[in-house]
Amino acid sequence: MSRTSSAPARPATAVDPFTMKPSLNTLPATELAAQATAGAITCEQVVRECLDRVAAREPVIKAWAYIDPDLVLRQAKAIDARANRGPLHGVPIGIKDVIETADMPTQMGSSIYRGYQTLSDASCVAVLRAAGALIFGKTVTCEFAGPAANVTTNPHDPTRTPGGSSSGSGAAVADYMVPFGFGTQTGGSVQRPSSYCGIVGFKPSFGLINPQGVKPAAESLDTVGLMVRTVEDAELFMRVLTGSEPVRWLSGDTRIRVGLCRTYAWDGAEEATRQAVEDAARRLEKAGFTVRDVELPSPCETLPTTREIINDFERARGMAWEWNTHRDQISAALAKAIRNGLTIPRAQYIEALETVERCRQRTAQLFNDVDVLLTPTVNGEAPVGLANTGDHRFQSIWTQLRTPAVTLPTHAGPNGMPVGIQLIGPRYGDDRLLAIAQRVFALLGRGPMIKL
Amino acid sequence: MSRTSSAPARPATAVDPFTMKPSLNTLPATELAAQATAGAITCEQVVRECLDRVAAREPVIKAWAYIDPDLVLRQAKAIDARANRGPLHGVPIGIKDVIETADMPTQMGSSIYRGYQTLSDASCVAVLRAAGALIFGKTVTCEFAGPAANVTTNPHDPTRTPGGSSSGSGAAVADYMVPFGFGTQTGGSVQRPSSYCGIVGFKPSFGLINPQGVKPAAESLDTVGLMVRTVEDAELFMRVLTGSEPVRWLSGDTRIRVGLCRTYAWDGAEEATRQAVEDAARRLEKAGFTVRDVELPSPCETLPTTREIINDFERARGMAWEWNTHRDQISAALAKAIRNGLTIPRAQYIEALETVERCRQRTAQLFNDVDVLLTPTVNGEAPVGLANTGDHRFQSIWTQLRTPAVTLPTHAGPNGMPVGIQLIGPRYGDDRLLAIAQRVFALLGRGPMIKL
Repeated sequence: MSRTSSAPARPATAVDPFTMKPSLNTLPATELAAQATAGAITCEQVVRECLDRVAAREPVIKAWAYIDPDLVLRQAKAIDARANRGPLHGVPIGIKDVIETADMPTQMGSSIYRGYQTLSDASCVAVLRAAGALIFGKTVTCEFAGPAANVTTNPHDPTRTPGGSSSGSGAAVADYMVPFGFGTQTGGSVQRPSSYCGIVGFKPSFGLINPQGVKPAAESLDTVGLMVRTVEDAELFMRVLTGSEPVRWLSGDTRIRVGLCRTYAWDGAEEATRQAVEDAARRLEKAGFTVRDVELPSPCETLPTTREIINDFERARGMAWEWNTHRDQISAALAKAIRNGLTIPRAQYIEALETVERCRQRTAQLFNDVDVLLTPTVNGEAPVGLANTGDHRFQSIWTQLRTPAVTLPTHAGPNGMPVGIQLIGPRYGDDRLLAIAQRVFALLGRGPMIKL
Repeated sequence: MSRTSSAPARPATAVDPFTMKPSLNTLPATELAAQATAGAITCEQVVRECLDRVAAREPVIKAWAYIDPDLVLRQAKAIDARANRGPLHGVPIGIKDVIETADMPTQMGSSIYRGYQTLSDASCVAVLRAAGALIFGKTVTCEFAGPAANVTTNPHDPTRTPGGSSSGSGAAVADYMVPFGFGTQTGGSVQRPSSYCGIVGFKPSFGLINPQGVKPAAESLDTVGLMVRTVEDAELFMRVLTGSEPVRWLSGDTRIRVGLCRTYAWDGAEEATRQAVEDAARRLEKAGFTVRDVELPSPCETLPTTREIINDFERARGMAWEWNTHRDQISAALAKAIRNGLTIPRAQYIEALETVERCRQRTAQLFNDVDVLLTPTVNGEAPVGLANTGDHRFQSIWTQLRTPAVTLPTHAGPNGMPVGIQLIGPRYGDDRLLAIAQRVFALLGRGPMIKL
């Protein structure tokens, strides 16, 4: 394993890694907001470069379900004219197309909702808009944030999937079109595309980001998540979204105890995933972290089963209207889940909920001995082809456990595609997890991805 | 205390208790569905009598935010023409106006949403519609299911509040306009109007009825509930809504252990409430139930505080769009909660969530020794005046604990107004709770309410 520049670079400066020209669209949100607030740049300048980037790359990437350049420029001028400047002043953001926006349609990746315009913004959109963010457009989602692939390609290799269901947000952020995209995760829909696209994905503790105005997939699992390029950006957006205090970053000599948690899915992972996690563990140990092996407690081995029961039961009921009135417009893959959900007895659903609750309580105790778990994000590199968005086995563990999870684009697999590592904190330990992730990414994420 | 006929009667036969004429609008849903399925009555006949009832009483009761008689009759004829007959065949139902309907506006009790038409039905509406129910109209809600009173009056005394926030559903069901209304409960918005209006209110375990398409008030507390006139009707609707098996009713010799749970709010209750609960306990004991006193475990005494923190924190974020764009159209009472919510630190919110979770785990253990808790529903009779919809102290305990709760209109207070008693089961013990409630109501609810 060696560091090599053949993998896609992550620029620390404002240089477009593809065109090698200075460019505002490559800057993270923290930097854009700081410069715009200081008057060094205008929001209009920023979005013009983002729009240029989209114009150049969108024919291949297909990250956007809706962009109106005139609306983007009008918003930018209005933001530039404002006297008061919020913490996200002038930052353009992408909104997954299952999240409602008052000024652009929400089409759910489904012909059933073609052109559908809601009255209001979702809570998470309204909060960011009020903080100065610019709603740049709607990003492509898999149909109702479900299993059926959509048209988006992977910016690192357009013959490969970007992952799903937050496909457009993953690709748009990775391709330097915008610094931030909202995702939603019910199985692995934030973390998987983040890993496949080589960006930072943050799934907060269940419930911390208000879900009002987000189309439910399975309401006891659905979690709004952040797709960004730096841990500092994840921190900034979480602070704004939940009204919290700034995270206290850790000094270099903070002792961090890592639990290396391979999980029951380890043997099914590709070599690249196993090497990435073990390489990360070795490097962290060398940097002074303590690392020990940790096992998921019983009955966590049942989580693949409980996820299917809970997801399908809730999905079938949450989509009752679509199923009853527009069944012919629902994909075969989603219809299968709904049909399965309709056959699950309520008692079996309740039993699954109670089993997962036991898993949550027991897993919480792991954090008596470690500060953070290190675990795979995904099975491996993004698969070739667009039909399969990958599987959620490594992500849906933590979705069900409701813990915060961050994926970091630290490694590159044998085909040069990103392979993330995942860090997990205890439920509601989101701030501490971000602080640890910032240190880990400073160690493992400087320069190009580590080639396996 | 004696039984008297001066309190409003609950007809066992199809006789309108106000006009004393035979009338289909007084029949419970179980009976309507059975007769319509057998071909003894048509849905059109049913809704014509319901519409007559509305025409006669609505000027005083003001239960409806939206009714289109033509749409009602068109629906009825379409249902009558159907070959297949669902379990709710021909049953007219009222939908609280924070719940989305594809064929009528959802106005939230707020001028912000005047005339707002969604594309789709909420999950709970779509499921009942598919089972043969007829969507009769939208019932009046307090603004966004919040604290600000609306125009509805109490059918037992129009100078008094029907309670809130499910005011219209409570009044419409009590006034024999429809046999069923949806409510939603975040504090006490199903159980309080049910008690004030003298009907059966059922708040299921949190999460059992899918919340998709219901405007959130505070998403970790919001629970869709049923407002009906018989326990059998609650059972029928729960079965349809959650796809479960029929409840096995209990035989007369089943031994039932009752925990009499006065709660920390007991001393603040009116005499009528305390007498109703203690009278119920005595009568049940006489009928062969065992009754023992039960105390809520610590830290349940903090539930009034946690409810305010959780409600206001979530409310403030869930209504970010309305707050940021239409603040002048939000009532002072709701604005106060939102303003408070915006000042609550995230850490305090998380602490409240964790405290309530401890309360849930400890309260669950009460049910090792008893089958059901008997506890007050409300503070007393419905207050005079429409400005105050009452307080949620006795209801919000169980909303936070996420247990199923049923209120039964067993007693009448000194002014002849209904005073309910509340029965509580363990979380997910909804079926057993309904079975016990059916026996209790058969004992205490036969004939007019017990005069205190």
